[in-house]
Amino acid sequence: MDAYQSVGIRRRLKRFFRRDGRALIFAMDHGFEHGPADFEPVWEHVDPRIIMRKVVRAGIDGVMMLPGVTRLAVDELKPDTGLMIKLTSKTELRPKDEQLLQSQLGFVEDAIKLGADAIAATVYWGSPQEDVMMRQFAEIASYAHDLGFPIVQFAYPRGPYINEKYGSKEDYRVVMYGARAAVEIGADMIKTYWTGSKETFAKVVDAAAGVPVLLSGGAKTDSPVDFLKLVWEVIEAGGAGAVVGRNIFQRENPEPMIRALLRVVHRNEDPEEAAKAEGLL
Amino acid sequence: MDAYQSVGIRRRLKRFFRRDGRALIFAMDHGFEHGPADFEPVWEHVDPRIIMRKVVRAGIDGVMMLPGVTRLAVDELKPDTGLMIKLTSKTELRPKDEQLLQSQLGFVEDAIKLGADAIAATVYWGSPQEDVMMRQFAEIASYAHDLGFPIVQFAYPRGPYINEKYGSKEDYRVVMYGARAAVEIGADMIKTYWTGSKETFAKVVDAAAGVPVLLSGGAKTDSPVDFLKLVWEVIEAGGAGAVVGRNIFQRENPEPMIRALLRVVHRNEDPEEAAKAEGLL
Amino acid sequence: MDAYQSVGIRRRLKRFFRRDGRALIFAMDHGFEHGPADFEPVWEHVDPRIIMRKVVRAGIDGVMMLPGVTRLAVDELKPDTGLMIKLTSKTELRPKDEQLLQSQLGFVEDAIKLGADAIAATVYWGSPQEDVMMRQFAEIASYAHDLGFPIVQFAYPRGPYINEKYGSKEDYRVVMYGARAAVEIGADMIKTYWTGSKETFAKVVDAAAGVPVLLSGGAKTDSPVDFLKLVWEVIEAGGAGAVVGRNIFQRENPEPMIRALLRVVHRNEDPEEAAKAEGLL
Amino acid sequence: MDAYQSVGIRRRLKRFFRRDGRALIFAMDHGFEHGPADFEPVWEHVDPRIIMRKVVRAGIDGVMMLPGVTRLAVDELKPDTGLMIKLTSKTELRPKDEQLLQSQLGFVEDAIKLGADAIAATVYWGSPQEDVMMRQFAEIASYAHDLGFPIVQFAYPRGPYINEKYGSKEDYRVVMYGARAAVEIGADMIKTYWTGSKETFAKVVDAAAGVPVLLSGGAKTDSPVDFLKLVWEVIEAGGAGAVVGRNIFQRENPEPMIRALLRVVHRNEDPEEAAKAEGLL
Amino acid sequence: MDAYQSVGIRRRLKRFFRRDGRALIFAMDHGFEHGPADFEPVWEHVDPRIIMRKVVRAGIDGVMMLPGVTRLAVDELKPDTGLMIKLTSKTELRPKDEQLLQSQLGFVEDAIKLGADAIAATVYWGSPQEDVMMRQFAEIASYAHDLGFPIVQFAYPRGPYINEKYGSKEDYRVVMYGARAAVEIGADMIKTYWTGSKETFAKVVDAAAGVPVLLSGGAKTDSPVDFLKLVWEVIEAGGAGAVVGRNIFQRENPEPMIRALLRVVHRNEDPEEAAKAEGLL
Repeated sequence: MDAYQSVGIRRRLKRFFRRDGRALIFAMDHGFEHGPADFEPVWEHVDPRIIMRKVVRAGIDGVMMLPGVTRLAVDELKPDTGLMIKLTSKTELRPKDEQLLQSQLGFVEDAIKLGADAIAATVYWGSPQEDVMMRQFAEIASYAHDLGFPIVQFAYPRGPYINEKYGSKEDYRVVMYGARAAVEIGADMIKTYWTGSKETFAKVVDAAAGVPVLLSGGAKTDSPVDFLKLVWEVIEAGGAGAVVGRNIFQRENPEPMIRALLRVVHRNEDPEEAAKAEGLL
Repeated sequence: MDAYQSVGIRRRLKRFFRRDGRALIFAMDHGFEHGPADFEPVWEHVDPRIIMRKVVRAGIDGVMMLPGVTRLAVDELKPDTGLMIKLTSKTELRPKDEQLLQSQLGFVEDAIKLGADAIAATVYWGSPQEDVMMRQFAEIASYAHDLGFPIVQFAYPRGPYINEKYGSKEDYRVVMYGARAAVEIGADMIKTYWTGSKETFAKVVDAAAGVPVLLSGGAKTDSPVDFLKLVWEVIEAGGAGAVVGRNIFQRENPEPMIRALLRVVHRNEDPEEAAKAEGLL
Repeated sequence: MDAYQSVGIRRRLKRFFRRDGRALIFAMDHGFEHGPADFEPVWEHVDPRIIMRKVVRAGIDGVMMLPGVTRLAVDELKPDTGLMIKLTSKTELRPKDEQLLQSQLGFVEDAIKLGADAIAATVYWGSPQEDVMMRQFAEIASYAHDLGFPIVQFAYPRGPYINEKYGSKEDYRVVMYGARAAVEIGADMIKTYWTGSKETFAKVVDAAAGVPVLLSGGAKTDSPVDFLKLVWEVIEAGGAGAVVGRNIFQRENPEPMIRALLRVVHRNEDPEEAAKAEGLL
Repeated sequence: MDAYQSVGIRRRLKRFFRRDGRALIFAMDHGFEHGPADFEPVWEHVDPRIIMRKVVRAGIDGVMMLPGVTRLAVDELKPDTGLMIKLTSKTELRPKDEQLLQSQLGFVEDAIKLGADAIAATVYWGSPQEDVMMRQFAEIASYAHDLGFPIVQFAYPRGPYINEKYGSKEDYRVVMYGARAAVEIGADMIKTYWTGSKETFAKVVDAAAGVPVLLSGGAKTDSPVDFLKLVWEVIEAGGAGAVVGRNIFQRENPEPMIRALLRVVHRNEDPEEAAKAEGLL
Repeated sequence: MDAYQSVGIRRRLKRFFRRDGRALIFAMDHGFEHGPADFEPVWEHVDPRIIMRKVVRAGIDGVMMLPGVTRLAVDELKPDTGLMIKLTSKTELRPKDEQLLQSQLGFVEDAIKLGADAIAATVYWGSPQEDVMMRQFAEIASYAHDLGFPIVQFAYPRGPYINEKYGSKEDYRVVMYGARAAVEIGADMIKTYWTGSKETFAKVVDAAAGVPVLLSGGAKTDSPVDFLKLVWEVIEAGGAGAVVGRNIFQRENPEPMIRALLRVVHRNEDPEEAAKAEGLL
């Protein structure tokens, strides 16, 4: 017989993943993690209500925010829009070496109070403070799971030793290590870097052994099609979708981009055709 | 600024109430409160998966179950089907005077683990054990509210003194008293008896002072139209919808009944026309 | 993704149920619930080590004991013998009306310390103290589930009103009510009375909606074949096995009886043939 | 590997039981349970220091007291005298039917603070308040065990229904029922009534399945030899010794009585010869 | 009398150790501790279900995993396969000096929820952070023991001073120091390094004073026989078995290797003959 917690985890994950097991999630924690300057390309998006309304209307599967912004923007969501609340972050104002630590800025209960469907936290695998983030993640995960909430890890390898040994944190051996570590510590969903190719990303997916792996969208690409192509490769590699921020909110008209992404994620459409269908080409 | 809890309560209530502020909710705690004999008219409905699948497919807004059955049936729900979990009940096997008490059979955490959107408990206002149920409700409500979950009261006046003084527990003075008591103790949604007329039910709605009042469906009516008419009157009286069990699961084909009810509740359709449109007449 | 608790519940239930989903469990709480006089037919069985050794050697799937006796007898078990520890009971020395209450004599932690694979508690549905036992069961179940332990309900309708209304506590309407109540409160396994026929017991199984229902073995039958026939009917009705005490420990040589029962439970063998094969006829 | 708790329990039990597995324990809770009038035959024994000094000098294995008296008398004990502290009692001043309940008058921590080697509590099996005492004993035992302290049950069947059904609370069927119930709830040592014969007391010992059973000494016998004979029969029946109060402190010179009892308990000496050797005949 | 905790510890240890007191345990925490690159020799083994299925089928006594992978792979275990869950680790992505610390990534409750039979944690004796790991181990052990779970220490001396003083962490004086420290802090089972010879490993076993010592398998040997010889020497030295990872999962066909190891561990077979019998030579 199922534990009650499994029932809740399953029910809540359904608010992100469609029957195809894939999801397109909008990320908007940049005001904290990068600072509001990230909104300068389209300044009105600094108001979370405005960008959230557009994103939801375009049919996004889920959204990710920090607690305080969730409070402001939640009325824009539909009852079945997945709401992921992230409990850790750090500012860019910190000294550089303190930026290898994500600190807790809210609690599992906060996310529950706000109506979350999933709870997220970052671990910088390889950081000199990996120890702190491991235990922090374990505590968040254990408590969230106990109340039936799925837990998402932003599994981001990052640290001095990584560059020294592997050359880059996007090296697939590094990325798949982070993804595997996320699995072994109990994550229900993983967000991570692009490894540069479909073949290497497939190894990340393998290492996750069935736990869904989503692309971390990263910086805005020059052309929309470039980003659609990237997401297409993620899907081809067995990825479960993407968590996208700047490639959405730094565009004047985010809706066509979202609709094109949904075509790629859920219908395996060719990126160029998807772009054309939504008037992006 | 809104408390985080307000955000969660609002978000979760949206899974029951459409923009018109009305809801049609399927109730299935009868296996406990009345015994499985209630399913004998259509025995296959004793399997909660089967009846839940039909009900959800027909477009129900929300469902109400006890924890153990939720565990079995929850995969049939859509991500935006409101899930109300009830934490109190009593069997009909008990000695008569113990039946004026509803006992707790689960905890707020159980409901949360299972993915509940609202938590329900009964108070028999007027029972010799009103004291126990008042405090039990207050404790459940306080904890549920603290975590952002709306709380529903089945406000059922019932007790020796009521009959003596008012003749019947369906007397509108009695029903509106129960509804008002529910409001004063902090309920976010009320389920109560039919008072016999639109005019008197409107007084119940008034006494609830804005807290939504839903009809408790009660025993199966002889003809479907009779029940549709009853619900129509509730809506006309300002009621926020109905919580319906036997009038759904004791019918061989519950889907047309549900669709007709949705016409009445959300579109104010005439009961006879709604029945015809769904082939019930 | 599965909650950790589901993993534990599943792993532990496997120590009782074979791949066919059925189990034969030996019960030995009679020293408490009936008194040691129950062992007088074969007095050496009052020593739990002696009877347990015989029972395990004969290939039983699982055993059920109270905590203090578990302490004495556990070394006789095999690593994969399911160990069910019961946390409630009452003596027959109590005044009659206090016998409608089962009191707690141990805690979930006690069972865990002792190496339990499942935790059991009785509810006398219909008792004037149903209220107390409901909440007691809910508390035990909630805590056991939180640590990944399956919970078994001895769902025994019993009370003054039952006889009055249904004539007997073995009436199938009563038994299926108790089984359904056990499901709705979250039991993972149910032990209940025989209803007198395969057809009526099948309704009990239906009402349990997939939660396994096991026969409560009851008093020793005159001939071994009579009991084998009873268990055969349980299996035919869709039951998941039997929990047997007196029909095992009140026999001088319990091993052949157990082996014959295993034939009936796991191989659907004809009761007479099973009895012959084990030299009971 | 042993749990730390087992180590502590074993070490502490050794302060009562010699290598032969037997113990003679002096009981002095009579000032509470019967009132100080029990000391009137030898009034100076109302001072616990005086009687304790004599008893310890005579070579007793262990002593049993309530917490407050322990505080006064503990300096008389030798480092290896077993100290049993009892945590429940009732006065004889209570209304008769309240005397079927033993109430808690101290806590496990109190006993530990005082240097206890074992903790005792009474259960009146068959009392209308059996329910309360079961749970009370379970709580005391669970906590004491967790800290490595052995727990002693004064397993005293007592209640209206017992007399009705068995004629007397000393009927062996009743006494062995209480002893077995003590085992099943986790007692490490049992104190109970004499059943009238060696043969019947042997059945009590059987029912305890290896948990040591000690005689409850009871009222002062007319001649010392009568009491020595009784204890001799207990030992012959497999009993583990005796807990003796009035037969010690109501005698002017308790030392010879204790030394004679030690001869019977530990050397299986003939009662008459033991009495002669100590000048009691 | 035994504490309940001893009963549970004994019962659970039986799932690892056969009657000969020896065990062969499969280790698979490498995805975390070394990274998924460890699976590249046989990439399909990165899926824990696939390798676990093979390993269990070959007759392994027990397995060791981290919590998140246990969740994925547990259904492959048999009811009597010992399940050891490890609660500490570190990645190789960390800066070198942070790799002398193992951080907690799960809790005792997590292991219990998942159905663990034993709980493991590493202490790097000699690390500059020995202090942190000592206390961490003590806390895990104390809580696990209180609930009846055996605790395994990976007693790995490692630190700058060790190399300086002893030349190598595999020096027997170092290894036996770690093993003894594990015993003194309460470990029920020890996993440690090979000391290079049977004679020196026997001293490690002596220092453990009866607590079972298992070999940490280490890197894959060139030929299977080399590893079998190593394990044979461990057994000859009085070791209780081996915990083997890479020598199993880095082989295309791990089953013959496991079966050969079982011959050596449980039947004291000559390594070359065991290898031949399983077609490895």
